[in-house]
Amino acid sequence: MNGAECLLRTLVGNGLDLCLMNPGTSEMQFVSALDRVPGMRPVLCLFEGVCSGAADGYARMTRRPAATLLHLGPGLGNGLANFHNARKARSPVVSIVGEHATRHLRHDAPLTADVAAFARTVSGCVRVLESAGGMGAAASAAVAAAYGPPGQVSTLIVPADFSWSEAGAPGPAAAPPAPCAPGAATIQAAARILRSGRPVGLYLNGGTLFGRGLEAAGRLAAAGARVVSDRFAARSAGGRGRFGPRRIPYFPEPAEALLAGLETLILVEAAPPVSFFAYPGRRSELAPENCRMFVLASPAEDGTAALEALAEEIGAPPFALGPAPATPCLPPAGPLTAEAVGRAVAALIPEGAIISDETVSSSEQVWPHLGTAAPHDHLPVTGGSIGQGLPVALGAALACPDRKVVALEADGSGMYTLQSLWTMARERLDVVSVILANRRYRILDIEIRRTGATEIGRVANEMIDIGSPALDWVKLAEAQGVPATRAGTAEEFTAQFRAAMAESGPRLIEAVLPA
Amino acid sequence: MNGAECLLRTLVGNGLDLCLMNPGTSEMQFVSALDRVPGMRPVLCLFEGVCSGAADGYARMTRRPAATLLHLGPGLGNGLANFHNARKARSPVVSIVGEHATRHLRHDAPLTADVAAFARTVSGCVRVLESAGGMGAAASAAVAAAYGPPGQVSTLIVPADFSWSEAGAPGPAAAPPAPCAPGAATIQAAARILRSGRPVGLYLNGGTLFGRGLEAAGRLAAAGARVVSDRFAARSAGGRGRFGPRRIPYFPEPAEALLAGLETLILVEAAPPVSFFAYPGRRSELAPENCRMFVLASPAEDGTAALEALAEEIGAPPFALGPAPATPCLPPAGPLTAEAVGRAVAALIPEGAIISDETVSSSEQVWPHLGTAAPHDHLPVTGGSIGQGLPVALGAALACPDRKVVALEADGSGMYTLQSLWTMARERLDVVSVILANRRYRILDIEIRRTGATEIGRVANEMIDIGSPALDWVKLAEAQGVPATRAGTAEEFTAQFRAAMAESGPRLIEAVLPA
Repeated sequence: MNGAECLLRTLVGNGLDLCLMNPGTSEMQFVSALDRVPGMRPVLCLFEGVCSGAADGYARMTRRPAATLLHLGPGLGNGLANFHNARKARSPVVSIVGEHATRHLRHDAPLTADVAAFARTVSGCVRVLESAGGMGAAASAAVAAAYGPPGQVSTLIVPADFSWSEAGAPGPAAAPPAPCAPGAATIQAAARILRSGRPVGLYLNGGTLFGRGLEAAGRLAAAGARVVSDRFAARSAGGRGRFGPRRIPYFPEPAEALLAGLETLILVEAAPPVSFFAYPGRRSELAPENCRMFVLASPAEDGTAALEALAEEIGAPPFALGPAPATPCLPPAGPLTAEAVGRAVAALIPEGAIISDETVSSSEQVWPHLGTAAPHDHLPVTGGSIGQGLPVALGAALACPDRKVVALEADGSGMYTLQSLWTMARERLDVVSVILANRRYRILDIEIRRTGATEIGRVANEMIDIGSPALDWVKLAEAQGVPATRAGTAEEFTAQFRAAMAESGPRLIEAVLPA
Repeated sequence: MNGAECLLRTLVGNGLDLCLMNPGTSEMQFVSALDRVPGMRPVLCLFEGVCSGAADGYARMTRRPAATLLHLGPGLGNGLANFHNARKARSPVVSIVGEHATRHLRHDAPLTADVAAFARTVSGCVRVLESAGGMGAAASAAVAAAYGPPGQVSTLIVPADFSWSEAGAPGPAAAPPAPCAPGAATIQAAARILRSGRPVGLYLNGGTLFGRGLEAAGRLAAAGARVVSDRFAARSAGGRGRFGPRRIPYFPEPAEALLAGLETLILVEAAPPVSFFAYPGRRSELAPENCRMFVLASPAEDGTAALEALAEEIGAPPFALGPAPATPCLPPAGPLTAEAVGRAVAALIPEGAIISDETVSSSEQVWPHLGTAAPHDHLPVTGGSIGQGLPVALGAALACPDRKVVALEADGSGMYTLQSLWTMARERLDVVSVILANRRYRILDIEIRRTGATEIGRVANEMIDIGSPALDWVKLAEAQGVPATRAGTAEEFTAQFRAAMAESGPRLIEAVLPA
């Protein structure tokens, strides 16, 4: 079989079943092989940033890599921002990138570029295939590398001549590596810290924020531990009855206030907390200056096992559902606000919903309400590069076709990867995209002052304003095959969101917020 | 003054007057300084690939760099594809990229990435600013580097703390370097080759395809020289009365036929011609195997001066306008085809129009007609990364506000950077975008077979089909503030395009072509 078919069979043999793609000439043999090799679902995206972001969303929900198939250096370039976000989410991704035929490279044809240099900006592992015969082994190794732990973007660069040449048998199926659990001494040391009676915090990230890890964290909290989590953790289970650690806020002042007085912070799959940006006259670290960091589990280790062992070690009570929650209230009628969106979403999402959340400046108004919602998974932004929310929703819907997916998306961020909507329509995915349209890069209204600029002049204001002309998200969605409506009041939003929850298939609601 | 103001004043002092931007927190001091420093036009784009492509279009028309202002590594990542295209166009661009404050970098905050690694993929020169006090000198050096020659992307990475700290006086104004003209011995050697009576070709690229260079080439052709040009040259003057070198075709078979029999190819700001992709069993080089390459002027040299000297040396006749041209014919009524679009555009564009051309699979039907059009400038794709046409049109319109700009854009390519339309509307630019909507990545129908895939199965066909759902370009344009119409017949297209030529301001016409 030729190299492309060998590659595809190796991926399928390693359990990969989804390939997000925007291929070109160099990848056509792979595309052709899709008709000969069963088991791989190919999904076409109209822009590479949709592919990379969807692979991230898929990995967050399945904990397995999807493949992406992109075209040469610049095609990969278009996917880098969301690969950066996937890297920060520690999502496993197998990124296949076509390259010119080896003998063509020295001629500097128009599309020639240093593909590996593009790849290294975001990849934990970059392989350039050196012969057609090496395809099977290289593809297996690329999959294994994606798993880490922790998960990472693993890039395999495939020259076109190795795709069209004889390549031999597919590579072996590699068992995903299991992360190690920390040893008994580490658990006992953490238990001593918790029992010391001194101010101690547990700081969670990675795989500890859903499933058994979160239950163990809830037991530790019930035993008196102060549990906080990374606001940018890739996936958190939330909603009624679940234990909800306090997320460290975005801006450093409230973040520092949350951590004030701590003498030790126990890190569980987490790095020490830092502020998103630096500002004049402020530290980057968020924990108190003399706070000691104790690593219970590194990002490469099994934090869930560590939390369970620690809960046993200190004799924490068994996990119990939270107190009977109040029924969430729908927002009162009146002007639409981000808070009203948060209330309506919290009241109306079904159990098992997945929320891809890129609310940016509206987060503080939306997030407090989600804790009262039906149990759900929450996928926030991870790497801070905007344009993540819609593709992550797309990938989550491909991963979990039986669950409702809601994308809470800011208008400025949504414009980066609006092509996601087309693939949602094409694949008939059950995704409701809510565009919080405040028609500004509103977070910059705050950030510009924080960086020391004391006045926002007319010109600077124009660089933050995206309302002139106003974007029409209903048309942007309909143009790509997604039915859409616009809500200008809380009651309109509630009615439209309720209707969207009752149906299946892609929908978009433009929630027009006060400027 | 702080570093941001110093940077801005240095750019303005060096003649830069346009900054295409999508800034974030790290660049807010620069944005704030725009209100204090006159002379720089800031233009906001909703996606970085629009910024980088527009800078390319601006540079092609002015031969001067615009600045771009992007946000950290991933923001730059979104601009890389069109920076790649700008690199292949040899367009000078000053790319300013914000970075975290220096003391913040070691903390690996969410947006932390290796910005220089992103930049090196496309830049001829990358500088990381090392102190606030070095800002002026670094900014001046960045501008000088952009000019080359040849022109290149020159990246200056600016940590946020150097923007908000005291930086001293702006840097000096550097005179743009003039490229060297080849020496007399080179001219005489080329003249001997031309006079030899053997089969010789002149192969043009760079600055030789418009203005005095093209006139000198026309003189050489009139004296009997066989003159061909790079299909991907950044800017070519075309239309009635102008000399039109034969462009080397895209596919290797007709390209090789055009160059068949040549014993010497004289290169003028050009590298030896190669095919766009490699295919099984074909050479990459397009000239005959034993054809000698003679460098009259390298891409860093003044090919225009070389052609003029060569024309004098061989006693070529003075430049004369071509024979009185036939009036171009409007297309006959009937189904809309790419050829009909080409005919109507050729018949209706005004003198001085600028055509940004990303027609991809429709080029062979459109381009032959443009030679009969009113004199115009033609800006084709250069680096082969799709999504170039609309941003280049935007940049050309910013460069030449008194000239009509027409973007001939394929639908698949147009979706990559459709956010360009919003900036066209916002800046009220006189750009008419024609979307050639065949609803396929149709070039891949051909390429898939050329790479050796003998059959296109059902799945492969779906990866080439972008018609399900069909994109509605009228809504995509209207949603961003650009009035739009759809044409399904030749007469509808002619009427709509004629109306667009008669008015000023942004317009879009979706030209629905047979699938």
